[in-house]
Amino acid sequence: MTVKQLSMPELVDACADSGVLGVGLWREPVRAYGVEETAKLVRGAGLTVTTLCRGGFFTAIDPRERARALADNRRAIEEAATLGTDTLVLVSGGLPAGSKDLHGARERIADALAELGPYAEGHGVRLAIEPLHPMYASDRCVVSTLAQALDLAERFPAQQVGVAVDTYHVWWDDRAPAQIARAGATGRIHSFQLADWATPLPEGVLTGRAQIGDGVIDLREWKGHVEAAGYTGPIEVELFNDALWARDGREVLAETAARFAELMFRRRGRP
Amino acid sequence: MTVKQLSMPELVDACADSGVLGVGLWREPVRAYGVEETAKLVRGAGLTVTTLCRGGFFTAIDPRERARALADNRRAIEEAATLGTDTLVLVSGGLPAGSKDLHGARERIADALAELGPYAEGHGVRLAIEPLHPMYASDRCVVSTLAQALDLAERFPAQQVGVAVDTYHVWWDDRAPAQIARAGATGRIHSFQLADWATPLPEGVLTGRAQIGDGVIDLREWKGHVEAAGYTGPIEVELFNDALWARDGREVLAETAARFAELMFRRRGRP
Repeated sequence: MTVKQLSMPELVDACADSGVLGVGLWREPVRAYGVEETAKLVRGAGLTVTTLCRGGFFTAIDPRERARALADNRRAIEEAATLGTDTLVLVSGGLPAGSKDLHGARERIADALAELGPYAEGHGVRLAIEPLHPMYASDRCVVSTLAQALDLAERFPAQQVGVAVDTYHVWWDDRAPAQIARAGATGRIHSFQLADWATPLPEGVLTGRAQIGDGVIDLREWKGHVEAAGYTGPIEVELFNDALWARDGREVLAETAARFAELMFRRRGRP
Repeated sequence: MTVKQLSMPELVDACADSGVLGVGLWREPVRAYGVEETAKLVRGAGLTVTTLCRGGFFTAIDPRERARALADNRRAIEEAATLGTDTLVLVSGGLPAGSKDLHGARERIADALAELGPYAEGHGVRLAIEPLHPMYASDRCVVSTLAQALDLAERFPAQQVGVAVDTYHVWWDDRAPAQIARAGATGRIHSFQLADWATPLPEGVLTGRAQIGDGVIDLREWKGHVEAAGYTGPIEVELFNDALWARDGREVLAETAARFAELMFRRRGRP
């Protein structure tokens, strides 16, 4: 999504050019290019698919809507397996129209996970509940903190359900480092993603994720938290940013890779 | 602020017309009209000033900037005393330019409270730390949850420092009800404010507070939480909303008062 302006073949090329060895994919472009075709293209280039984004949207009350959501999530699990990634990231869903019941919505997420967890495990795929920043609690994701995500995930085996840690969503939360340790202790950090926080937020607050290094988040510190919790998996950079999307995608990818190297690997204290 | 389009005398008139017996004031319009003059006007109309908004902005690192902030807060305390309110609401401040250190910023808030708490108490004024929604953590207030606000407040006597509970800022937080109980147990709920949550959020996310009843927050439930915690003080409605500001202020005030009566006092289950 960081460089959604690139076609699938352009993306694969650009990753090779920038020394990027793994890529997180979103379902829409994958399905547009073809799931099998994407799998073949990516595998042929020696690229790893780190995660598939996104399943979820489990909070509907209407039974037909719920059945549709579950069916769609089974397809997402199958797509993840075809792409060769072991992780499906979940955006759990907001409040249904007219509802003010956050607790009930969270319980319906648990119900969905109970159905999907074994199906995912059968496909070698782990579900990663991504807590979204509380500014998305009504319309996108009623799971707003790592603590809430873990309260849900821990009802299920770790090989079925864990969490996705995205710096953009958790950076403000003084409890998050302890929750990362909690997640690590039971092997539930299934994804770690970087994006930076900058203001003012744009209307709708969806496309304001700043390029890493351009915001207020101490990204290196968060990397330290997940590593201290035993995380050794890939680190993704996931930006939704109108200004970045308007630029040349190859240039953005190269810039992002350079920032990543600078922020994640330079020694502290070096100017 | 809900009806900032009204002049001070218009506001006082409109409150009388709508049966509103108390009003929370902001410093800017009070100073524009004159602090003594406002006190006289409001007192003459039999209106109570429920709170003064706002002190705070304690997070600067620069010593001169810090000294200026403390001096300004002493003035705010004096103004509150002149207006006859016992509560000064604090917006604690965001990250200073270039800083990524939330913890350090929160500690500087504690330092400021240590200086201002006794001064406030000497004037019969209590400081109310208002946790702001985490979407304001970088630019406005590094205190994002009631738990964080209470961690700060409890370092000081309750008659010096407590918290302000605003539904708009805490509604998403499943820990907030327990924190309200914690605040009530030590007599630290110094203010309770209502605003409703609706999306999409506007650019800058400052003026999207919805009229009570127009959003997703179960306001009655939150009233129940503060009452269960022993709160018997005033309930304010604080909206920043461009659409409401563009309308006739008297009409907005009457509508808000009617909504308040309907939402807060009708029996549950009544259609």
